[in-house]
Amino acid sequence: MIKLYIGNKNYSSWSMRPWVLLQQAGIAFEEIMVRFDAFTPDSQFKAALKPICPTGKVPVLVDGDLVVWDTLAIVEYLAEYAAQHAPDTPLWPADKAARAHARSICAEMHSGFSHLRTHCPMNIEAQLPHVGALIWRDQPGVRSDVARLVSMWQTLLQESTGPMLFGDFCAADAYYAPVCTRLLTYGLPVPDDVAAYVNRVCALPGVKAWMDAAGLENDFRDFEEPYRLQSTR
Amino acid sequence: MIKLYIGNKNYSSWSMRPWVLLQQAGIAFEEIMVRFDAFTPDSQFKAALKPICPTGKVPVLVDGDLVVWDTLAIVEYLAEYAAQHAPDTPLWPADKAARAHARSICAEMHSGFSHLRTHCPMNIEAQLPHVGALIWRDQPGVRSDVARLVSMWQTLLQESTGPMLFGDFCAADAYYAPVCTRLLTYGLPVPDDVAAYVNRVCALPGVKAWMDAAGLENDFRDFEEPYRLQSTR
Repeated sequence: MIKLYIGNKNYSSWSMRPWVLLQQAGIAFEEIMVRFDAFTPDSQFKAALKPICPTGKVPVLVDGDLVVWDTLAIVEYLAEYAAQHAPDTPLWPADKAARAHARSICAEMHSGFSHLRTHCPMNIEAQLPHVGALIWRDQPGVRSDVARLVSMWQTLLQESTGPMLFGDFCAADAYYAPVCTRLLTYGLPVPDDVAAYVNRVCALPGVKAWMDAAGLENDFRDFEEPYRLQSTR
Repeated sequence: MIKLYIGNKNYSSWSMRPWVLLQQAGIAFEEIMVRFDAFTPDSQFKAALKPICPTGKVPVLVDGDLVVWDTLAIVEYLAEYAAQHAPDTPLWPADKAARAHARSICAEMHSGFSHLRTHCPMNIEAQLPHVGALIWRDQPGVRSDVARLVSMWQTLLQESTGPMLFGDFCAADAYYAPVCTRLLTYGLPVPDDVAAYVNRVCALPGVKAWMDAAGLENDFRDFEEPYRLQSTR
């Protein structure tokens, strides 16, 4: 059975993506949580991950002897896997142009949106609208990142034949799911059609399952908390 | 015909990757160079790219009505394209495990090696061994990035059935080609077997053609030159 190594569900946005894909595709897998810490070379996290994967980071997918790391490579692996084992839920759009477009926005996320990622780290259980309002006021880079999101999603949703970015659910929706949770946590302002898409993503069974588990995790890690002194649950 | 928008060949490491893939696969394409500048919103570079692609960055591949951006998405598009049009040069390994491994190290490059990328920007025409020696002395992050490269490449080369990382040439070799040029420009120390691989990559026809063109470009852009006041050619 496929094993997926993940970090804390409340904090690990990269882990969330392949986990959601596996859930949405209905692929059975074993989840192995490695608790986040300071990520120093001698940390428990690194000690647990280094024997599994050369980068010492999550997510890591293990399928028998095969180790796949880095989210985009895991997504491509799962897309091939789903094509064989779960053909009812293709993870990339069937249309060549849509598939190339979906991959473009995933790769854009993989290396971009640095302001949003830096200033608004994922923190699903938290509600930080006041912090978000200050970030919105003070960080033009965050406003610019959100403007790009809004433009990207509105363009795609206007052309979409379904509720998701490319019709039915695909890997691109999973890739942006942690962005959706950030928009909610920090209360960042988006137009109504974008807010409706955010809500639809958060209602996807795989996304909801992750967010529910994150909310119950109750494992406050100060390394990951620039804006809270303790859990506010 | 496919169009590929690229930046200056001397500086644009991301542009180099798909260009090398197209050359190696023997796929005909039109190259459109957009000269690097300060990348401010009102710059000529952004004015040229923004109408083509929402991110306003190179590389961008245009195939008819289809626009593909961000290097990893372009690579996946070209891999599908090559499978149809240039089946003699598959861009990913045929073996499932090797393919997943190749994608893992490409994705790792896409989002990683930040110290090497920050301190040793690509600059093919330059020879900066003294700068490189100071960086090597002062930047533990660069030493750590190079140690990861050496470990990755040695492991793969020991198992490889050919001269490249996964036997014959594949997208992973193109992905690391700009890293090979950096090792040469800055004279960073690597073991002999790794140095031999670097030389083999630089001798690939597609890589050599790019490097030769970069060397002839003679377009000194001070935005991209932390270590030189003028061309030293």
